[in-house]
Order: sequence, then structure tokens, then C-alpha cells
Amino acid sequence: MSHDLLPPALARALADLLGDDGLLTDPAERLTYGYDNSRRQAMPAAVALPTEAVQVVELVRACRRHGMPIVARGRGTNTTGASVPVAGGLVVSFERMDRILRIAPDDRLAVVEPGVLNGDLQRAAGEHGFFWPPDPTSAPFCTVGGNIACNAGGPHAVKYGATRDNVLALAAVTGAGELVRCGTPTTKASTGYDFTRFLIGSEGTLALVVEATLKLTPLPPLRRALRALYADVGSAAAAVARLMAQPVAPSMLEFMDGDCVRLAREVGGADIPAAGALLMIQADGDAATLEHAVAALSRAAQGPGLVALDAAPDQAAGERLWAARKALSPALRTLAPGKINEDVVVPVSRIPALVDAVQAIAREQDLPIVCFGHAGNGNLHVNILHDPADVAQSQRAQAALGRVFDAVLALDGTLSGEHGIGLLKRDFLARAVTPQTLALMRAVKAQFDPDGILNPGKLLPEDV
Amino acid sequence: MSHDLLPPALARALADLLGDDGLLTDPAERLTYGYDNSRRQAMPAAVALPTEAVQVVELVRACRRHGMPIVARGRGTNTTGASVPVAGGLVVSFERMDRILRIAPDDRLAVVEPGVLNGDLQRAAGEHGFFWPPDPTSAPFCTVGGNIACNAGGPHAVKYGATRDNVLALAAVTGAGELVRCGTPTTKASTGYDFTRFLIGSEGTLALVVEATLKLTPLPPLRRALRALYADVGSAAAAVARLMAQPVAPSMLEFMDGDCVRLAREVGGADIPAAGALLMIQADGDAATLEHAVAALSRAAQGPGLVALDAAPDQAAGERLWAARKALSPALRTLAPGKINEDVVVPVSRIPALVDAVQAIAREQDLPIVCFGHAGNGNLHVNILHDPADVAQSQRAQAALGRVFDAVLALDGTLSGEHGIGLLKRDFLARAVTPQTLALMRAVKAQFDPDGILNPGKLLPEDV
Repeated sequence: MSHDLLPPALARALADLLGDDGLLTDPAERLTYGYDNSRRQAMPAAVALPTEAVQVVELVRACRRHGMPIVARGRGTNTTGASVPVAGGLVVSFERMDRILRIAPDDRLAVVEPGVLNGDLQRAAGEHGFFWPPDPTSAPFCTVGGNIACNAGGPHAVKYGATRDNVLALAAVTGAGELVRCGTPTTKASTGYDFTRFLIGSEGTLALVVEATLKLTPLPPLRRALRALYADVGSAAAAVARLMAQPVAPSMLEFMDGDCVRLAREVGGADIPAAGALLMIQADGDAATLEHAVAALSRAAQGPGLVALDAAPDQAAGERLWAARKALSPALRTLAPGKINEDVVVPVSRIPALVDAVQAIAREQDLPIVCFGHAGNGNLHVNILHDPADVAQSQRAQAALGRVFDAVLALDGTLSGEHGIGLLKRDFLARAVTPQTLALMRAVKAQFDPDGILNPGKLLPEDV
Repeated sequence: MSHDLLPPALARALADLLGDDGLLTDPAERLTYGYDNSRRQAMPAAVALPTEAVQVVELVRACRRHGMPIVARGRGTNTTGASVPVAGGLVVSFERMDRILRIAPDDRLAVVEPGVLNGDLQRAAGEHGFFWPPDPTSAPFCTVGGNIACNAGGPHAVKYGATRDNVLALAAVTGAGELVRCGTPTTKASTGYDFTRFLIGSEGTLALVVEATLKLTPLPPLRRALRALYADVGSAAAAVARLMAQPVAPSMLEFMDGDCVRLAREVGGADIPAAGALLMIQADGDAATLEHAVAALSRAAQGPGLVALDAAPDQAAGERLWAARKALSPALRTLAPGKINEDVVVPVSRIPALVDAVQAIAREQDLPIVCFGHAGNGNLHVNILHDPADVAQSQRAQAALGRVFDAVLALDGTLSGEHGIGLLKRDFLARAVTPQTLALMRAVKAQFDPDGILNPGKLLPEDV
């Protein structure tokens, strides 16, 4: 059965429920809700713009009666195709459920609707001296609901955790149209099965989140950056292990491989020494403690293979130390118009082996592949550069992607650290988990979503 | 069907599988595996002592064929009756699966069997400069598997998290006899549904954990204690909120209410000023940072209602500041031979309201009830003192318990912060979660354990 259009009875029911301006059916309007940052696109049958949880309950029940697929949507900044309505059906955009319901400084929490922008939440929490740790690059325009869907991270996760570590409670509507409440507005709880963390990272395939209680963290008033260059990736990885093994946790610990350093220098024009690898290290704290934190991180950064260690005396100088990273993105674009950017993750000690494996794959497939990313978590962004207009190159890029995933899994890593699986990686999931685990994922999914209407075609591979 | 004895065919199969000394059937031996720290006791049909995961897979399959209940057991230190075999069946003690398989300092992780003692793990990790944050009072003789079963916490959870925050991956055998592997040995992952955190706190009702990959944390070399006394609980709770709202996280933040302070002084003989509430505050760090951390916590501890603030110049003096807490337990025993100790949790701002409610319940039921515990997490241990030999008093204690839970739930809290539900609190679970959430818990349990053989009668209330 096609889900390109709403059956008239369902269209009437949804229009009654959502009001005249709460259901978009015009193709020109629907089109803009059919893409995400994966560059994939598909046409939904309609777009719902609910304003309250009870509407979400009712719209799921109505869709379920018609077997109509439902795709929850924040702002479409995800990179995996998770919010592309490949099976048609109803896109539920949470853009009108964007309120911060409550900030409770004494309890260090915020209660929000899923459509609130990460950046808006940060501003509101900042007025009370707090922040919410997940900080993906898209923070100004991505939603908290989307962060929950893919277990978003960002550079500060190395000290403060990713989304799963920073959510206390959720209210969500299952595919059966039941509103479930899980978790407690406390930082400790041991009362039955933990659906809160289970829903995080489930990419809209189990339930639609309609309210989230977020754990806030006191905002350190000061930050200071260090930039360390190493002769090779092995020396940098050993430094990462030293930095993570001492008690002063870096608030950021970012990595660039030698190709990235070379591109930033030679193509991007960054004024940095030649080196085989680069680490950007950040300390945070207050006036009394920051110096000591910087000193501890400087000591840990030093070791065999260190080429240069630069400290930024203040925040502005810290920004200038990022020149290499900033020069990198335009440099990559001059090399090739297209890139496949995968956020694989490996144990920290395996970073050199991963970079070696990636370089071998790059030679084998005759394509530039560069690695940079969140080294403290072993979460590297592997960028396979290619020209999408060149069919042979694109095929080699796809072949390289499969080989990268195989290398990551052989190194005890996994497919994604913070982007999720979505559409683009679902066919690789069966390589990453055992058949027994995959069978259990399917069985549990069926309890949340008995008719399989929630985000079909995502996360789980096709059941053949 | 009775599960007091193994059917002969099952007894033979298990003896073949586990060897002569791997299956205990003598009543005197079985008896010692039938209790836990809840003081409840029941007789299992037999006790299995597996030495490897493959035996656990086979014994679950054998028990499933006979519909025989299975109760996983660490060392029985839990307080909720979760390891008491109330339905008979087979107790699986993990005492022979107690190996530390691997400690990887560069990857900040340890891979262990479930029967390893928490204290043994801490010693082994300490040799590499690390610790594993969960530190229940029973740490020297409780197992990591037991910590995982009830999502154990302890005083350091306020800074470093409880068990759920410190486990990266698990291997576990479901009630269907399938070995599932979940998680990755990395601190970030977004690859399908998160069974790792879901199994933590599930009290052996979903699967038997046979291997755990634990996240280790660098051990701060120094710790320093502060003791703050306040005029009333409200002033102390305001100080807790201030302490938690600034960037230097206390490594412990323990609370005693005014009755505890009075008992410690008048009955226990502790040399402390009279006060309405007490906080024990701990900072950790190294020689360069500790002073600053202590100063930051001292500033935050000061405010309206502060009666006295004492700093311990060194670790030994810190121990002496604990005199009040140490005097408390014997003082409580002189008041009444029995106590019901529940580890409820509320948002930090609700601590004063909880203590008020508990005092009202104490007056109403004419029983002493005192509160102390992990204030930074809002996780208070409510101790209802009574004489178990006095039937009327015991009935009033039970009535008080129900009223305490109602008060906690009305304050947005929940039944347990770190002990779990087990046998003793299962009848209260339906007050803490909605019918929809409870139904989903049952539905998911059935996917892990289709025949309901794993720890029957625990966590979930009877399905009537």
C-alpha cells in the first residue's frame, strides 16, 4: 500500500485534530520537510505541526488505524537520513513544541519540549549559570528532540558526556499511541527498567518524545586552549591516553591526522608547523583553578614525539589556535566536491591502528581519506573525499566506506559515536551487532511499535 | 508446579554440565544461598556454580525446558530481597566467575566477570591509578554483577555517577538462553538500541550478566573533608543547591537530619555542636588544585543558617569529622532493634519537604524515623525504627513505609536511588510508574524472558 497521500478519512481526522494551519498537504510545503543533512530526500504525504502532547497521542492513534508511517522531525540537521520519509507517510515536525517549560537551578534541571533549539536552551540555562553538555556543530539550529533521537555528542562530551548521560526523564508516545513516562527528575534512580536511556539514540523508531527533563551542569567561567603537534599518530594517541589517565579531565580533546595538518598548511594556508598529528586540548575552570588545570594538561601532553606545544594565554588566542581546524574544511572542498563523513568510534589505544587502516584503504581505493574528531572518546570523523559526478569514484567511495566499517569493528569499535545509524548505515548494523542482539532489538521494537509505523526503513536493517 | 526440587532429568543435565562440585543439592548447602541482607530467606532447589559463560547459556536452556526459575546471585548484600529464591528453583551463584579478565589503562576500562568483588576490582584498578566509581558500603564483599543488578551507587556517585553511568558494555544470557552482547568498549556510541544501560538495574529479571566492560576513572590522589552544621534542614538544603550549582563538584555530599545529629550527640556521644542538620562535604584533587576546591566548597557551604563549618587539615582529621556519622548507627540500634531503611530519592529542592513529611509520619505512627544519605543526588536513606517483636509497632512501621513512599512520589521523587525494588518494594512500583509504562515493562520483559523463569516475583508487581 502506497503512503504517498493521506486517505481522505485520515486527512479529515488530522485536520480536525491539528487545526487549519497544523497540517501541511501542499506539495511545495511538504517538499521542505523531506530532506535532511544526508542530502537524501523523499516526499511525505503530509506534515503535522502539533502544539501539545495530547495531539501527538491522537495523531499516532489515527495513523495507526490507517497503517500510515510516521517520521518525527526536529530541524533536519542529522547526517544519516534518519528524518527522511523514505516510506512516505506523515512527518511530525516539533517546531511548534519548542517551549522551555521550566528551569530549576536548585535541582540542576530543565524541562523542555522536543522542538526547542539546543542553542536557545543553552542561552536560557546560561542565565542561571548552567549549560547542557551536548554541543554538536549544529547546536544553534538543531533541536533537543533531535539530539535525543541520535544520542548527539560534540567536543565537550569528553568531560561532560553525550546526550544519554545528560537526560533524566522523558515523556514519549509509542507507536501504539500510548503516552509513557520514564525516569525521575533526579540524578539517581533504580526503580524498574530504564526506558529513558533506551529511547535515547532510538531515532524515532520506538516512540515520539514529547517532553524531556535535562540534567544541567554548572558552567565553568573560563576556558583555555593548548595545541600540541606530534611527529606521528602513535605519539598523539599515546598523549591522548596520558591526558585521559590523569584526574584533570580535558573539556575538549580534538585530533587531526597528518593529512589534515598538511591540507590545513598547504591548501588552507594555516600558519602551523609540519607534523604527523595535531591535538587541540581545552581546560576549563575558574580563576583559581584554571592555571593548574592547564599545567596538568600541558604535562600530560608532553612525551615522545612532541613537535610543538602552544598555549593560548586567553580565549581570543585560543580561537587563533583553531586556525588549522578552520582552514581544514575549505581545504577539503578544494580537493573534492563530495565527502562521506562517518563518525566511527574505537578504543583510544586503537586510534593509530585505525588511522593506518584508513590510509591503506585510501591507497587501495585511490581516494583521499582524512581523519579528525573527538580523540578523548576515540570518536573520529573519517572523511572519504570523492566527486559524486564521477560514477567510478563514487563506487570506490562506497567500497571504502564498507572497508572502513570493517576496520573499525575489527578494532573493537562501532559504526557511530554520535550521529546514529539512520538510513545510510542500516545495512551495516548486522556487522556491528550479533544476530541474537539484532533479533532482540527487533522484538523490543515490536513492543513499542506493534505495527511498525514509526520511522520505517531506519536504524534496523531490512528483515529478510 | 512446585520448584522446591530439581526434576531428576534436570538434576542430571546440570550435574553433567557443571561437574560434581558445581551443583549443590544438599539442603545445608542450599540454605546459605537462600537469604540476602533483606533478612528474608527461602530454600532454592539447587545452587549452580558456573565457571564460564557457556555453562550459563546451557543451564538457562536446561532450566527453561523444565520451566525452572533461576535467581542470579552475587554475595547477597542487597537489601531488597532481590536475590531470595521465593519461587524456589535454581540459584546461580557467580562466585567462581570472579576473574578480572583485562585492565586497559590506555582505554580506561576493565573487563570483568560478574562475580568479582567490587573491592578486588578497586585494588586492581588502583594499581594503574584508576578507580571504578560505584562504592556502596558493602564494597569489600559485594560483586560487580550485583552492583549492575541494582544500579548501585554510594557516596561518590554525586561526582562520578552510579553503576549505569560507569558501564560500557555487557554480555548477558537472556531467559531464552541466548547470549547477547551489547555496548562497545568506548565512552561514546550510537549504534542501535542501548541494551547495556537497560540491563543495569533490571535485577536479574531480564538476563544473567556474564561479562562486563567497566569505565574506569583516574583516581584523584588527595581528598579533604568539610563538616557544616546548619540551624535547620531548609538551610542545609539551600547549601546543597549552592554546592551543586558551582563548577567544583564535591566528591561526596552527605546529609544527616536534626534527629540524627541529636542521636549522634546524646546517644552516640559524638563531640559536635547541636544543630538542625549536618552536611559532610568532600573535595578531591591533587596538590595543586585541592586547596582551591576546598575553598570553593567552603564558600558555597556558607549562607543563612550556618552554625559551624569545620575543615579537616588532612585525611586523618577528615576521618575524625565523620565521628557523628559513625556514632549514628550504634545510637539507632539502642533506640530500636529493627529498622526499615529505604533509599528514596527526591529533587534536591524537595529535601526539606521530604524531611518535614517524614517527621509528620513519625508523629502520626508514633515511631522514630530519621533521614540521612547522599544529599547531592537527593538520595536519602529513610530509617523507620521499630521493634520487630512488637506486632503493633511492626504494623505501624509498614504503614509508615507506605506513607513515606506516597510522600516521595508526591514530591516528584521515586522509590529507590541505588538499592532497587526487589521483593520488598514490588507492590509499590505501580504507584511510581504509570499503567502504560508498567505494561511496557512487562511486554519488554517477555521478550527477554518468554517463559518468565528469571527471578520471578521480583521488581514487577504481580500481574492481576
